[in-house]
Amino acid sequence: MIGLALSLPPLDLHQLYHGIFAEEAPDLDLRGPQHGTDPAEVEFVFTFRPPDDGFTGMTNLRAIFSAGAGVDAIMACPSRPAHVPVFRVEDADQALQMAGYAAFHVHWHHRDMPTYLAQQPRGEWRRTLTGLSPTHRRVAVLGFGHMGRAIARGLVALGYPVVGIARRLPDLPEPGVSHITTAELDAALPQIDILINVLPLTEDTRGLIDRSFLNRLPQGAALIHMGRGGQVVEADLLAAIDAGHISGASLDVFETEPLPPDHPLWTHPRILITPHVASIPERVRLVRSIRDRLRSLPLKDAS
Amino acid sequence: MIGLALSLPPLDLHQLYHGIFAEEAPDLDLRGPQHGTDPAEVEFVFTFRPPDDGFTGMTNLRAIFSAGAGVDAIMACPSRPAHVPVFRVEDADQALQMAGYAAFHVHWHHRDMPTYLAQQPRGEWRRTLTGLSPTHRRVAVLGFGHMGRAIARGLVALGYPVVGIARRLPDLPEPGVSHITTAELDAALPQIDILINVLPLTEDTRGLIDRSFLNRLPQGAALIHMGRGGQVVEADLLAAIDAGHISGASLDVFETEPLPPDHPLWTHPRILITPHVASIPERVRLVRSIRDRLRSLPLKDAS
Ligand SMILES: NC(=O)c1ccc[n+]([C@@H]2O[C@H](COP(=O)([O-])OP(=O)(O)OC[C@H]3O[C@@H](n4cnc5c(N)ncnc54)[C@H](OP(=O)(O)O)[C@@H]3O)[C@@H](O)[C@H]2O)c1
Ligand SMILES: NC(=O)c1ccc[n+]([C@@H]2O[C@H](COP(=O)([O-])OP(=O)(O)OC[C@H]3O[C@@H](n4cnc5c(N)ncnc54)[C@H](OP(=O)(O)O)[C@@H]3O)[C@@H](O)[C@H]2O)c1
Repeated sequence: MIGLALSLPPLDLHQLYHGIFAEEAPDLDLRGPQHGTDPAEVEFVFTFRPPDDGFTGMTNLRAIFSAGAGVDAIMACPSRPAHVPVFRVEDADQALQMAGYAAFHVHWHHRDMPTYLAQQPRGEWRRTLTGLSPTHRRVAVLGFGHMGRAIARGLVALGYPVVGIARRLPDLPEPGVSHITTAELDAALPQIDILINVLPLTEDTRGLIDRSFLNRLPQGAALIHMGRGGQVVEADLLAAIDAGHISGASLDVFETEPLPPDHPLWTHPRILITPHVASIPERVRLVRSIRDRLRSLPLKDAS
Repeated sequence: MIGLALSLPPLDLHQLYHGIFAEEAPDLDLRGPQHGTDPAEVEFVFTFRPPDDGFTGMTNLRAIFSAGAGVDAIMACPSRPAHVPVFRVEDADQALQMAGYAAFHVHWHHRDMPTYLAQQPRGEWRRTLTGLSPTHRRVAVLGFGHMGRAIARGLVALGYPVVGIARRLPDLPEPGVSHITTAELDAALPQIDILINVLPLTEDTRGLIDRSFLNRLPQGAALIHMGRGGQVVEADLLAAIDAGHISGASLDVFETEPLPPDHPLWTHPRILITPHVASIPERVRLVRSIRDRLRSLPLKDAS
């Protein structure tokens, strides 16, 4: 079965994955755009952010697999055939990676790690002796799906009071989490010390975290952004930090990725940047799940 | 009831605590050495590291309270009257602080945060795309008491494989943790990627983590030291890092505290230093537990 890896530089999904496909699923022939495969031969696509015309001519396409948990760029691709199913990654291991990332950045802000890091080269032994209890930091997880739940679970185990926010209350409440819906967001924002965003990018969430949103958080609140670029208005965030209202931010995703080298976010002393690595699904796990899903697709002749 | 706060500069326990004693336990009169109280009047001592002659003349002392979880410096104090009970802090909130600290530093080493922090001012978008799963890092918690258990619980919630090590197997195994005893330590060390030390300082643990110990860890292992200075031989650690055998360390406790400003640990690029702040019990909680324990002591006349 022929598949095509579609990616935008600097990411090269074919290079990263073709060896693993060969090992884990020898019946799947993953090609890259450089192979000049006839689009009509392509039966599945493996992609994260496809080029606008990536799907052109794929008349025999049966499935689209995302290399990540978010499928916003795939859904927005103008050449994507609307009838072909899109499968996103739902990997418990990836969710645990997100949980570890969140625990790190919550501690970073709560325990003021930037100050200790700045003191270290100066040989300065200066200690904050109060406020170290996790019970002092009310953390909100905005977007309570696969990722949000794992993040909340980790933070509850570490003693943080956690509010989970989505449009609907979850069928299965997470022990230790206060669940609210977005209808209660306005009332909740002033009570949140650390906001973790893990929303999917949709029409509703684009530009959501703007000046007015940030201003409703209390003075000194911190932001951990692990959803998608486009949800946080970066200029508004910079202004809110410079105004002293927001104390700092950890950012993993950006309006433009890779974040341009001269972007002011890079050098802001109160911002910690990671280059979209909050989580990366394990390649072997991902390929096996694609293989299993392809095997369970309805037979071509039967359709 | 008269109590005396004993501390060594720069820590001043009287200054930090007398207001809280006044509020939470007005019947307890906490004094500092500057008040020139007659030692025979002192009924309880509140201390973490007492001066060598701190207890001299305290003929009516009934209880000694530690301001922290470790009591090694109190036990070692030559003027301590051996018949007076020493109470250590056993605070679930403090244990959660330790768990958050451990989760941060495990992520720091596992996810190579020093590299991302170094790249940031250069505007460098360079990503590690493999090995992010917590399942790739075997973490050991050395010392499985009050603190070790909370640390292990947090790391299990974040998906890390955790080995817990003490002299005896615990009565109550912690779900998700492989328990071993120190008899199995030699066999276990080569399997540990991140070693978290939370041992109490005793004759057995002084100097335990030396050259030979570090060399039995696998190439690239990291150390998180949150027990007590004196357990890690600092010169051996520096040598093991410089030899490329140990990949890095997070250190919260030191042979000499405060760590002298010119100490080579401060400026080592692969060492992250925090000034003994992995956890600090909440003052209100601590004072209340002292108050409650003093009230439950046998009556003086009855002794
Ligand atoms: N930085 C990274 O490395 C990384 C990695 C993985 C994922 N992510 C991001 O995280 C996102 C979430 O992933 P996931 O696997 O958790 O997705 P998911 O399982 O689909 O969960 C999405 C959650 O968001 C809620 N939601 C959707 N629209 C909302 C809105 N307008 N307001 C409030 N809540 C809303 C959903 O609940 P309701 O439907 O009830 O609202 C659900 O709780 C991905 O789309 C991706 O953007 C980033
Ligand atoms: N950096 C900080 O801010 C900070 C804060 C709190 C505590 N601490 C340190 O952490 C230490 C532990 O605190 P804790 O409250 O967890 O104490 P704990 O409840 O008394 O637990 C001590 C643990 O160490 C084990 N142990 C003792 N001697 C051992 C040895 N020679 N080899 C192997 N295991 C041994 C004990 O089990 P067995 O008896 O079965 O061996 C027990 O599991 C404190 O003493 C203090 O030094 C540091």
